Amino acid sequence: MSTFGTLFRVTTYGESHCASVGAIIDGCPPGLPLVAQDVQVQLSRRRPGQSNLTTPVIVDLQRDEKDQVHLQSGIEHGITLGTPIGLLVRNEDQRPHDYSETDLYPRPSHADWTYLEKYGVKASSGGGRSSARETIGRVAAGAIAEKYLKMVYGIEIVAFVSSVGKIHLPSTVGPPSQVPSDDDDTVEDVLSPEFVTLLKTVSREQVDAHTTRCPHPETAERMVQRILRAKDASDSIGGTVTCVIRGVPSGLGEPVFDKFEAKLAHAMLSIPATKAFEIGSGFRGTEVPGSRHNDAFIVKPDGSMGTKTNWSGGIQGGITNGEDIYFRLGFKSPATISQAQETVQYDGTPGTLAARGRHDPCVVPRAVPIVEAMAAIVIMDELLIQNARKATASLLPPITTLPPAMVKPGAPSAKE
Amino acid sequence: MSTFGTLFRVTTYGESHCASVGAIIDGCPPGLPLVAQDVQVQLSRRRPGQSNLTTPVIVDLQRDEKDQVHLQSGIEHGITLGTPIGLLVRNEDQRPHDYSETDLYPRPSHADWTYLEKYGVKASSGGGRSSARETIGRVAAGAIAEKYLKMVYGIEIVAFVSSVGKIHLPSTVGPPSQVPSDDDDTVEDVLSPEFVTLLKTVSREQVDAHTTRCPHPETAERMVQRILRAKDASDSIGGTVTCVIRGVPSGLGEPVFDKFEAKLAHAMLSIPATKAFEIGSGFRGTEVPGSRHNDAFIVKPDGSMGTKTNWSGGIQGGITNGEDIYFRLGFKSPATISQAQETVQYDGTPGTLAARGRHDPCVVPRAVPIVEAMAAIVIMDELLIQNARKATASLLPPITTLPPAMVKPGAPSAKE
Amino acid sequence: MSTFGTLFRVTTYGESHCASVGAIIDGCPPGLPLVAQDVQVQLSRRRPGQSNLTTPVIVDLQRDEKDQVHLQSGIEHGITLGTPIGLLVRNEDQRPHDYSETDLYPRPSHADWTYLEKYGVKASSGGGRSSARETIGRVAAGAIAEKYLKMVYGIEIVAFVSSVGKIHLPSTVGPPSQVPSDDDDTVEDVLSPEFVTLLKTVSREQVDAHTTRCPHPETAERMVQRILRAKDASDSIGGTVTCVIRGVPSGLGEPVFDKFEAKLAHAMLSIPATKAFEIGSGFRGTEVPGSRHNDAFIVKPDGSMGTKTNWSGGIQGGITNGEDIYFRLGFKSPATISQAQETVQYDGTPGTLAARGRHDPCVVPRAVPIVEAMAAIVIMDELLIQNARKATASLLPPITTLPPAMVKPGAPSAKE
Amino acid sequence: MSTFGTLFRVTTYGESHCASVGAIIDGCPPGLPLVAQDVQVQLSRRRPGQSNLTTPVIVDLQRDEKDQVHLQSGIEHGITLGTPIGLLVRNEDQRPHDYSETDLYPRPSHADWTYLEKYGVKASSGGGRSSARETIGRVAAGAIAEKYLKMVYGIEIVAFVSSVGKIHLPSTVGPPSQVPSDDDDTVEDVLSPEFVTLLKTVSREQVDAHTTRCPHPETAERMVQRILRAKDASDSIGGTVTCVIRGVPSGLGEPVFDKFEAKLAHAMLSIPATKAFEIGSGFRGTEVPGSRHNDAFIVKPDGSMGTKTNWSGGIQGGITNGEDIYFRLGFKSPATISQAQETVQYDGTPGTLAARGRHDPCVVPRAVPIVEAMAAIVIMDELLIQNARKATASLLPPITTLPPAMVKPGAPSAKE
Repeated sequence: MSTFGTLFRVTTYGESHCASVGAIIDGCPPGLPLVAQDVQVQLSRRRPGQSNLTTPVIVDLQRDEKDQVHLQSGIEHGITLGTPIGLLVRNEDQRPHDYSETDLYPRPSHADWTYLEKYGVKASSGGGRSSARETIGRVAAGAIAEKYLKMVYGIEIVAFVSSVGKIHLPSTVGPPSQVPSDDDDTVEDVLSPEFVTLLKTVSREQVDAHTTRCPHPETAERMVQRILRAKDASDSIGGTVTCVIRGVPSGLGEPVFDKFEAKLAHAMLSIPATKAFEIGSGFRGTEVPGSRHNDAFIVKPDGSMGTKTNWSGGIQGGITNGEDIYFRLGFKSPATISQAQETVQYDGTPGTLAARGRHDPCVVPRAVPIVEAMAAIVIMDELLIQNARKATASLLPPITTLPPAMVKPGAPSAKE
Repeated sequence: MSTFGTLFRVTTYGESHCASVGAIIDGCPPGLPLVAQDVQVQLSRRRPGQSNLTTPVIVDLQRDEKDQVHLQSGIEHGITLGTPIGLLVRNEDQRPHDYSETDLYPRPSHADWTYLEKYGVKASSGGGRSSARETIGRVAAGAIAEKYLKMVYGIEIVAFVSSVGKIHLPSTVGPPSQVPSDDDDTVEDVLSPEFVTLLKTVSREQVDAHTTRCPHPETAERMVQRILRAKDASDSIGGTVTCVIRGVPSGLGEPVFDKFEAKLAHAMLSIPATKAFEIGSGFRGTEVPGSRHNDAFIVKPDGSMGTKTNWSGGIQGGITNGEDIYFRLGFKSPATISQAQETVQYDGTPGTLAARGRHDPCVVPRAVPIVEAMAAIVIMDELLIQNARKATASLLPPITTLPPAMVKPGAPSAKE
Repeated sequence: MSTFGTLFRVTTYGESHCASVGAIIDGCPPGLPLVAQDVQVQLSRRRPGQSNLTTPVIVDLQRDEKDQVHLQSGIEHGITLGTPIGLLVRNEDQRPHDYSETDLYPRPSHADWTYLEKYGVKASSGGGRSSARETIGRVAAGAIAEKYLKMVYGIEIVAFVSSVGKIHLPSTVGPPSQVPSDDDDTVEDVLSPEFVTLLKTVSREQVDAHTTRCPHPETAERMVQRILRAKDASDSIGGTVTCVIRGVPSGLGEPVFDKFEAKLAHAMLSIPATKAFEIGSGFRGTEVPGSRHNDAFIVKPDGSMGTKTNWSGGIQGGITNGEDIYFRLGFKSPATISQAQETVQYDGTPGTLAARGRHDPCVVPRAVPIVEAMAAIVIMDELLIQNARKATASLLPPITTLPPAMVKPGAPSAKE
Repeated sequence: MSTFGTLFRVTTYGESHCASVGAIIDGCPPGLPLVAQDVQVQLSRRRPGQSNLTTPVIVDLQRDEKDQVHLQSGIEHGITLGTPIGLLVRNEDQRPHDYSETDLYPRPSHADWTYLEKYGVKASSGGGRSSARETIGRVAAGAIAEKYLKMVYGIEIVAFVSSVGKIHLPSTVGPPSQVPSDDDDTVEDVLSPEFVTLLKTVSREQVDAHTTRCPHPETAERMVQRILRAKDASDSIGGTVTCVIRGVPSGLGEPVFDKFEAKLAHAMLSIPATKAFEIGSGFRGTEVPGSRHNDAFIVKPDGSMGTKTNWSGGIQGGITNGEDIYFRLGFKSPATISQAQETVQYDGTPGTLAARGRHDPCVVPRAVPIVEAMAAIVIMDELLIQNARKATASLLPPITTLPPAMVKPGAPSAKE
């Protein structure tokens, strides 16, 4: 339904043309410094009207009057109380959509028809909750989670556009790397070293330096051209977003049904227009023999355990291992296009759905903060659940009756 | 945790070396004919020891004494009572694992180390709940759901192996189809017509006709060679499973966080060793312009609404539209390999983890019934939730005050 | 946390001095006619300032500017869309509470101290979410549920004040009836016939005819005197609310942990200041022999099955049986009193917490709509869950292989 | 449904005549020493056949062959792994119930009829999951929770029989205390000092010293006579169980819907045959003015904060305050009686349901371990949730920007 999470719980409401869209965030740790600006930054990265593709995204928060968040509760004097945080963003156009000839048609690959099948009634604006405007609540909730994760654990979440249409990061930089032929098992790398370096270093500033939110300048420029081509053709084009999360502690993720990657996939595929998800080596990892895909353990310079490679994407057995988590998410080309389409009306009458207005030909750059938000929400929820276990188990007397290999040295302990 | 689902709820228990593995299935509709054999069929397709790769899988249920399911409750005289169905499968080796030198090492890319990080203690056998044996409960639960779905809705769920290593279904048959160059937007098909046909027709019998559970004979034979090569190299190899679901009614899936594909991805990525998921056109769909990707509506020969193409994979806006649902799931190469590995011990001492015994070099064929089971569980749960809404809304008086485009003709109605 | 319900799900936010209090109601059936007035009626019955105890409660909705509900989403043209309904009521005093000497003291039997123990931080106003203002979201959600329940099932929910302090309905009218001595098992009635009649007939109009919301005029007048005595003594007094629900269909309630009475008790004891709950014959039923307490079955004049008596309170085995549901809820005397109290400060310093202002000496009359709201929410949620089961089971073929006593004639069926 | 709890989650299965009854306990802290005997002790206190009322309950665990628990998973070498604990108890009589003339009748005040209404089909044995045998899973789960709570927090949970029929603890000892007349607000005590002392000191050994599990010898003897009178009359009699929980830390309970008492009431009213619940002063607390009912704060001899009186029953604002928690639970007289009853058959035919066999005339003594078990489950779950919050909040920097009265000195902190 409209709630996500077990202990860090986000519930959202709102369609395109109602009074407001909003959310209730329950389970935020008490004592967290939080002001509206913390939330507004990500909301402004999410909002439409940034994609003229000629100037970089400069969010002037002082003058940005659109999509202003209004915090309602759960905070006093800039400190969270641990109680639910209500928030809302007013809709500009609150009138129900005016009826027109296009309303006779369910829009192809849109949610108009399925909403009507599901509910028997639908919002005048069409897809109702399938509107991108619904994501405002997620982004706000994610910004709150991220504030905590960064402040306490130093967790960094950076998403970026890794492809638009068939314009991908070059194979020396990004996935998929050059796949060796089937006869050749000798190639060492599952993913290219350049891509591994990118994941380790990419920052939100680098991402926002480009209109397309692709941190590789030449590719970013090619993406612009691809988007303009779609625009000129009154068409649309999809793409992929890659996200890396650095600094997540080991031990998060709940076997067996709520493995970290399972909950992450759930969160990501709940974002509108997503059709594909892969974590770590992903589909590429199905082609590399186990002997090359396995991540051998090492002792890191700081004395902690880690893995030499990280094709697992920071997760083994559904539980985080402390290495970087990275994943890729595919967004189909937008269903709303500025050209006429042959289709049928709700009653089955064949006809042509006329184009209406101009539409954003590529939404992937705007999806970046949404992906980051959903990632933050998942981590926060899994962290709370694991902290419950650790804190509770840490009070038990030391285990002395098990073979050493069955017990973590010094465990159970609530310390990170 | 170990429970999945809202109204059709599966809870499982069990490790490799404990007394048994089992499950409680809550929320099964009352009045469903159900005997152990219904469950045993899928359990037998799942169990190990089928992959000698020389003879086809012939499950002789009369003589198959392994992994026998014992139904405990919720059924009388072969009819479900609507109360929880408890079931279990005894473990053959119930002794805790004997300690050996290999126990000093966390196995690379296994769950040994992360379980210890998470719980502070772990099962002697290693990964505990990350054992493939855990999937028995899921398969049993899925078989029960599938019995209902088939009997009442005629729903068919067929999964098959679509790749092993780099051996894929040929591009004329399977995904990914030949991707046109970036300059060329004229190619009509998102996926090949042969693949679309395969999805419409493939049966479980065709799948089981081949040891590798690939329904394309030549590819199946190449897969055998690939697996044998991995075996000879004391190595392992991954692959992908594609699944098609035919006959799902429209209207399933709960916006916004529990979209059908989101819950499906959650279910699929909770299966051990999975790393990637795509639904419908998947990653391919990010590269095809919207004008070609959109599924235009048509009236079908039987008079019902449908779509001309089905690149959406049977889901629009997170809600099923009545078309076939199909998705692809990537399994990484198994972490357990029959060769020595350079790594470090739990205490950081570098060394060589010796190989121990022979292991299944490719688990993808056995994953087929697990994928089908999780699909059935998701559909059953979403179906119950939607039936709650439909049955409840159907009792309201007809809506007369809304513009026609906002109301489904004849809706709300509880009828399918 | 701040969410209640499985399929009909209410999530609330808000403290006394934040911007607003509000709720998101998820799972409302689509197609329900709903306007703000439907909600406002119950909110106005709930709001403070009604207890001058000299004039009857006349809610002039046209002029009532306090606690106005603002519906945000999920409704268009006065019809619910099936999507979440966001709503809020603005707080009049949105400034954080000014600091004063009384803030040094945790108020006795208030939530000040326990909130600080729980969260480490608390709202300046004291108990934060324990404020009675939090109940606004519940009442709004309950009004929406009730609209459906009344429109479709004709369900009537009527709560009334059954005692204030030691002023109870007379034993000829209300519970507890005259308890026979232990030697005497011959008394026929578990509860008095007058009380049974009252439950069958009492209306919301009768209840609101009296300031105290007690439908027995003489008792109501004695309650007024009791409340005035508490007021004059700068003290407070508690009481009980009895609630009857007429017209609930049989079959609601989910064994074993979510029995109807268990979920109802959960809902009721989540209302601030409640300390006791009894359903049907309640504590009285522990004293009456089984032979007199059992409700024999009869055929009713309309041909339907029912019970001759109804000491079970409409529930058997955790499942509704179609008879009236009635229960009694105890509210302790309010902790906020207008007299000084000897206690200690947060730091342990003994002292006197000075009285501040005048307070409502008795809140039980205002609790009436809150009790009704929580009852409506529970019924709506259980109804949706049961409708899921019935609609799903109704599609199975008739059962022919069970002994007749195991199958409901004509079942399974989705019809009421 | 059949699952209770959020982080400590119990799921049960089983009817009277199926193969076994059992449970899966998910979320048990890892590292807890646990053997079957820990569970068996409470199961043996629960099992039938203890109520011949002439000899005290002596559970000889070595020779007790009934209701033996079989632990299936989640434990190795006597230490919990943190993974789900599966367990089961075999049923002795696994044959479906033989059909007889009594099967034509739904038993009055039993679940036969409502189960049929709900599911359309029912177990041959009658009420199916409403059987007392279902409570085995709860008791086992509770014993596991209690092991942790006692070992780590020293929490003591002691339930006892406080009334049978109209035989109550004398008013100088137990609730309800002598209620002063309405004109008299001067009486100091809400509950008698003797009862307060009993709550502070009563032990499980004292309780088990009497067949009736009433720790007041003279009352216990009167209860025996009352039960024998019911037995002689082929009748049954109900009663109440009072439970005290000592040592629960402050801060447990989740506002607003999952207040500690709300979740406790939910748990308790899910026990078969319960009809009433009161916590702390309960219904009595509705009659005592606020000035006398308020629990003033004091500094305890050990320097900790506490309350002078404890009429709140250890909970304020839905959150535990560290004082003893006590509550009373009412069980109606058993519906199964050894005498004929005038009623109607399923098809409406009037007739006499013949008595069949002899039945336990009073089940309250056996309910004692069930009440303790559900209490332990609730505490364990709330403890895990609060530990999640505390451990997570404790990592935030100290709050320096709030008025002192809003911040707990030294908080947030994960320490107890």
